[in-house]
Parts: sequence; structure tokens; C-alpha cells
Amino acid sequence: MELIRFDRRFFPFELQRVADEMVPRAKEALQSIKEKTCQGMEWTGWFDFPRQRGFSMARDIRDFQSRLDVHYDLVLVIGVGGSYLGSRAVAEALTHEYAPLVGRQGRRGSGALVAYAGHHLSEASIVELIDLLERHQPVVNVISKSGTTTEPSVAFRIIRSYMEQRFGKREASRRIIATTDPHKGALGSLAAEHGYHTFIVPPDMGGRYSVLSAVGLVPLALAGFSIEDVLEGAEGVFADLRRDTATLTAHPVTQYAVCRQAAQEAGKRMEIMAFQEPKLGYLVHWWRHLFGESEGKDGRGLYPSGMQFTTDLHSLGQYIQQGPRDLLETFLVFEESRATDSFNVERRVRIPHMTDNADELGYLEGRFVEELNVAAMEATKVAHCDGGVPCLEIRCHRLNERSLGALFAFFQTSCAVSALLQGVNPFDQPGVETYKENFFGLLGKPGFEDLGASLRKRL
Amino acid sequence: MELIRFDRRFFPFELQRVADEMVPRAKEALQSIKEKTCQGMEWTGWFDFPRQRGFSMARDIRDFQSRLDVHYDLVLVIGVGGSYLGSRAVAEALTHEYAPLVGRQGRRGSGALVAYAGHHLSEASIVELIDLLERHQPVVNVISKSGTTTEPSVAFRIIRSYMEQRFGKREASRRIIATTDPHKGALGSLAAEHGYHTFIVPPDMGGRYSVLSAVGLVPLALAGFSIEDVLEGAEGVFADLRRDTATLTAHPVTQYAVCRQAAQEAGKRMEIMAFQEPKLGYLVHWWRHLFGESEGKDGRGLYPSGMQFTTDLHSLGQYIQQGPRDLLETFLVFEESRATDSFNVERRVRIPHMTDNADELGYLEGRFVEELNVAAMEATKVAHCDGGVPCLEIRCHRLNERSLGALFAFFQTSCAVSALLQGVNPFDQPGVETYKENFFGLLGKPGFEDLGASLRKRL
Repeated sequence: MELIRFDRRFFPFELQRVADEMVPRAKEALQSIKEKTCQGMEWTGWFDFPRQRGFSMARDIRDFQSRLDVHYDLVLVIGVGGSYLGSRAVAEALTHEYAPLVGRQGRRGSGALVAYAGHHLSEASIVELIDLLERHQPVVNVISKSGTTTEPSVAFRIIRSYMEQRFGKREASRRIIATTDPHKGALGSLAAEHGYHTFIVPPDMGGRYSVLSAVGLVPLALAGFSIEDVLEGAEGVFADLRRDTATLTAHPVTQYAVCRQAAQEAGKRMEIMAFQEPKLGYLVHWWRHLFGESEGKDGRGLYPSGMQFTTDLHSLGQYIQQGPRDLLETFLVFEESRATDSFNVERRVRIPHMTDNADELGYLEGRFVEELNVAAMEATKVAHCDGGVPCLEIRCHRLNERSLGALFAFFQTSCAVSALLQGVNPFDQPGVETYKENFFGLLGKPGFEDLGASLRKRL
Repeated sequence: MELIRFDRRFFPFELQRVADEMVPRAKEALQSIKEKTCQGMEWTGWFDFPRQRGFSMARDIRDFQSRLDVHYDLVLVIGVGGSYLGSRAVAEALTHEYAPLVGRQGRRGSGALVAYAGHHLSEASIVELIDLLERHQPVVNVISKSGTTTEPSVAFRIIRSYMEQRFGKREASRRIIATTDPHKGALGSLAAEHGYHTFIVPPDMGGRYSVLSAVGLVPLALAGFSIEDVLEGAEGVFADLRRDTATLTAHPVTQYAVCRQAAQEAGKRMEIMAFQEPKLGYLVHWWRHLFGESEGKDGRGLYPSGMQFTTDLHSLGQYIQQGPRDLLETFLVFEESRATDSFNVERRVRIPHMTDNADELGYLEGRFVEELNVAAMEATKVAHCDGGVPCLEIRCHRLNERSLGALFAFFQTSCAVSALLQGVNPFDQPGVETYKENFFGLLGKPGFEDLGASLRKRL
């Protein structure tokens, strides 16, 4: 069975035609990614990464793990944006919702919990994270190419100080693992000085395309997930795409890209990614980052928004059904989303029998709840399509490391093709510096004093 | 100090002028809400609710609590949409991020944890919820006007069955509290039959305007929050609005409504609500429901989207800075968001000193992290304004029950005014039935067989 299937039957015929006309250009774009001749070609290392470097890197990670001589039951990931969203997408999708409470029962492999820092500047969150650390034996994976991005640097100062006080400098150094640029940058220097074990942020991929490198896979390995399955799922997609581009007209990567751009050309302004499991929230955060930062430039780009169904049908369903007709909606459907190879196999839940039928659910007795969830996605797709929203569907069979790996490869490639169709560089982010400079100005960073003074006059 | 301040200095002058021209109409709209003569007037009971019924209802809730003769340490809220988003907004904003783990230290008053069900159809989530319940002594508050909405009904069947098996029918009935229509509806009948204590869903307000009624306040009281403070914060805003409407030109309720509609008239399609604390996520979910369902009709309405800063600046900052110029951005700023009257007072975190300065943060040593967080909001507001995004600011001093109550009253009233300015009924939701009927059809509900058959042909 294919890991990812794509369905455009609820995408209007006139848009399908526009999409079909874009296919030759999409294939050129795909070819240029494969040949590393596209815009931003120096950032396309992710495409061949699993095959050329990924599996050997995974062996290095496993080797490191087998030699790691500290006991740990919590992995703290310090990173922001692409440095944590990918690993968090996998960890949250496949972890018990109440993992801190239920212990090993809700966790895989090593049984370690995963926690996150360095992606915000919330003092309350840092205080509460310390409470969590106090109750565990943590290892820390700090992930930053440069080592000077404000949020992870602030968090790492605080956590490093905490770890050294708690464990002493020597053991703290064994419990800290740095993923960073091996040759330059602050974190690399710190790691060398303190003897932290180091993994490499590959130089030929940006943060939002880096989940399949050490950036995403080191914390997942430490937390007991199968990084080999993630890589195999991804490489399945990449291997498929390596065959003759001419044969790839109907491929999900091509189709998703042309349908999105056809929708944008027809005036759609936003893409809603609808998903049916609460645990997929971070996968969709990762997707928002990937597409928003790759395409949101030159005054263009579909705004990527996530919606959890059926939950959000009870808050934003009205808007989707009858608000402005500038939406594209993509349904991300898992036929088996109970992570069945994980902890909760054999614990299916059926609608129980009740002697009274006051709630009018009698007709559902004995059915599995998951059946209802999948049916709700189908019902909604038809309703929204009939309401004037073009709908696409991305369908996977089972939620696990392999399908998540495949989705990473699928979305990354399709996003790059889609951005190239739109005519922008999929791999840069020229607009992210402005607020950072203002921030340095307001905080009084040396070199930004004049900017700070002029900002304070405006505030 | 005013609980809520509104700032439009970073909203372009030409839009300010359009907004000013709408003020007379906004005042008429506000007056029509106060006098219950507006569109949907039968749903305006929320405006006078705290004063006329709220405080006496709060006493009833406290009285019930004092007579509740079961030990509990977990409150399970079963409800969807407006039945849980409001109470969850307060509970999450004021609860320790790792509450299940840290015990009473991270909780208020009764020290009970709050959990949620009935807002999705995820089988995995239900399985994992049972794991949570097994480790606690739960009480259940099931909230549904009708008692036949699919998600809460499914969850309540499963949980009722669980509670009866675990505690026996008699004790289960003492542990289940129903908030529902007192005169008709399935849940009311069930409650009467089984002797559940019952609170009233007021007949004159819709779900998204009901947080200040028993719908929102019963679970909050059971979990140890000050519902009196929530009501007082809200009533402060309502009392202020009861004075002569002519004097309310500069009032935040008027100003937020006219600025939003001026932005929509100028072609803006989306409002981003930017917030600086992870714990405010559910407050912003509640806001999305309120505005999306009130205004998203007749092909119009700003799409409400939440962004957590600085986190999302590292994923969607690029899009905001350089994507399509159809955004309005509202900054929700708390000057003190550490919930200082709660558990983590006296635990401030400063940037620690480090002998090396590899991370270039030396200039920040000794500063509180919260200072950085507030400065980041300011820096971003200026950057996005300079990039062509009109920016508004809603500013509160301290995050607690009182300010959250005030925000509920502020947003509800401003939303109703804004929807009336847009020319739609703020209180109906005519578009939410389509997918439900399709859903019944696909599941084979009696009476929907023909629809089911025709849908299956299309799928």
C-alpha cells in the first residue's frame, strides 16, 4: 500500500483544469530540485539526505546512545522553529496525551519523556519547566546552527546554569548534547570548551527542511522512537521521486503543488489543513512553518492555518461554510490513527449500549469511535465542497514513524515545487530580520543603540 | 487602573479616519444591544447576566460545592464549542503547564486538575483519558443544552458507563453534574432520572456568549478558581458600558469594533491575535470561536487566527512581514503574565551571568525574562506596522481571574457591535447544520438514510 494517497475529487473541475495546465512547469521545478539547479539550489541537500547521509547518521546516533553513560528519563529539546517543530510533530503524534502522569506505559523505547524550551520568552513557562526537570533525570539536546538566536540562547543559559548546579560541571557536560554548525558559531565553541557531544546541522538545508537530519532525529532517538522508520518512510517517497520525472504527473507531490497554486491563482487566500486527531497538532504546526515561510513573500502565498476536526467545526465551521469564499481546504486523514503499534493496541472503544436512548445515539451502539471520526471527515469534506470551498485530501493508512517520515518528505518536496511555481525562492526568509533588529534596539544590544532610541520615540 | 486599555497608534491614519466615521453606527449598535432591540435580540441575555443573575448563581454554585459529599481531585468537563472553551481559557491560563505531574503545587483552591472530553471523536484520546481518570477521583460536569450533540453525547455515554462501573450507580450519580436546559432536552431528562445535580444553561444566550453563566463557572468553581473575581472583572466592563452611550466613543469596546470593520472595509481578510504566553492559547481559541461564528456569514467576516509570540515569529513571521497585505494584527499584551497571585510568585527568572559570552547575551544579564517577552511584542508591532500590517493593541496589567473576566465581557460586547456594523446577526450560526446532516447520513441515523445513500455515491 502506498503510504500517501492524494484525492482531488472534491476540487472543482475548473480548478483541476488550471492545475493540469501547470503540471509541465511543476515537473520542471521538481527536476530542478533533483538536479540542484533551482532558485536557492545551495539549500536542497535535504532531497538526497536520507540515502546519502541519513542512515549512516542514524547509526552514529545509535552508537552514541549505546555509549551514553548517564541515566535519564527526560529529553529536553532546546530549539526554536525548525529546530524543534519536526521532532515535536513525531513525539506528540506518538505519545500518550498524559505522558507525564502515566509513566512508561505511555511512552516508547527508552521511556523518556520529551519536553521543550527555547521557543518562547515566557518566564512562567521556564519556572514551570524547572519544576518538571526537578522530578526527572534530564538530558538536554540544544539545537541551534549559530548558537546566538535569542530564545534558545536565553533558555540554554538558564538550563546550563541549572544543570551545572544540580549535577556539577562534569556530569552536566555529559548530559548536554549540542546539534550545531561544526565549524563556526557560538554553540560549537561552547560545546568544544565543555566537551558536549556534538551532532551536525547540515550546511545545505534550512531549518524548516531539516527534520530528517540530526536536528530532528537525535531527540527522537533519545526518546525511544524509531528514527530508522522515519528515515525509511521518507526515503520511500524520495526514491519514488528519483525515477523519471516525466512519469510523475499523477504523483501526490506534483498534484498537491499544482492544486494549491491553481487555488491561489483563482484568488484563494488561505489553506486550511484539517486533521482529525488532537495529537497531530504539531505536525500541522510544522506544515504551517514549512509553507508559510517558503511561500509568504513578495506579497503572495496562501496563509496556512490548521484546524482540528471535529473540535473546530464547533467554533469555525460556520466561517468555513458561509464566510468569504477565499479558502482552500486540505483534509489530512489517517485511517488508523490510534498509533496501533504503540501502547494502546487492544484497547478499542465502542459506543456502549444504554437502556434508555435519550441521547438518540442508539443507532451507533457497538461502533468504534474511530469509525465516527473518519466518517466526520468525509461528511465535512462534502459539506464544505458544496458550500463553495475547494477540497483536497491527503490520506495515510496508519499513524506511525514511517507514515510521518513519508509525510515530511512529501510536504517538503511539494512545498519546494509549489513555491517555485509561485516564482519565489522556497528556501530563504528575507523578512524575518526586521523585528529581531527592533528587538535588539529595544533591549539595548551593543550596535543597536540608535535604532533603540528612535523606536522608543515611537512607542 | 483600567483592566483593559486599547491602543491604535500603529493603525494607519487613513484607516483610523474610516473607523472614526463608523463610531456613530457603532454606538447605535451598542445601544441596541443594551436595549435588546438589535438583530438576534432574544440572545442578548449575557449583557446583564452578571449583575442580574450571575452573583446569585455563584452563591448557588458555592452552596452546592459545600454540600458536595464526595472526595475529588479531578474535574472532567464534557462539552464542545462554547460549552468548554471559556472555562478552559481560564483554567489553562492560570494552571501549571505540568499540572498532572506537580500536584497541588501547580493548582489553586481545591487543587483539582481539569480535564476535557466531548469535543472530539478521537478514540485514542478517549483511551488515554481513561488512564488519567484511573489515577484520580473524578467528578464530571457534562454541559450540553440539548444533550444530543454527537461529540459530548458519545463521550458522556462512555464516561457514564465508566463511572457507574467504577463507583456504582449511586455514587456515580453524586459525581455527575449536568449543566443543561432545565425544561426540555435529553440531558435534563437523564439528570432527573439519575438524580444528577443540575445547573441551568440560560435560555437567552448562545454557547459562545455563555462563559459567564453556569456553563463556564461551574467547572471553574469545582477546580478552585475564583468565579467571583471572573464575574467582578466582567461586571466592571458591563457597568462601564451601561453609562450614557454618547460618552463611549473612546471606549475599547467601541474602538476595537470600528477598527476591525474599517480594516475589513479596506480589504483585510484576516485578523491575527498575537499573544505572548503559551498559556493564553485557549483564550485565543475562545476568541476565534466568538468572532468566527458571529461574523463568518453572508460571504464576509475576518478570518480569526491566533499566533503565539515569539514562538510563531520563527515560523510565520516571514509570512506576516512579506506575504499578502490582507492582514490585521491585534496584540494581546499582559504586562505581568506570571499569574503572580498564584503558585509561582517569588520565583522570578533573570538571565544568568556566564563568564564566557559566546552567545552574545552578556548585555541582558540580570534582566527578567518577562521584560524581554514584553519588549519582543513592542518590537514586533513596530516591525509589522512598518511592513504594511495595521496593528492594534489590547493591553492588560496582570493575568488573573479578574482580567480574564473583563476580557470576556470586552470581547463579547465588541464582537456583537462589530457583527452588527458588518450587518449580520451576531448570535446565529445558520451554516453549522450541513456537515452534521451529512454525518448523520454517513453513519446511518434513522431519518437520514436517503442522504446517506446519495453521499456514498459521491465518495
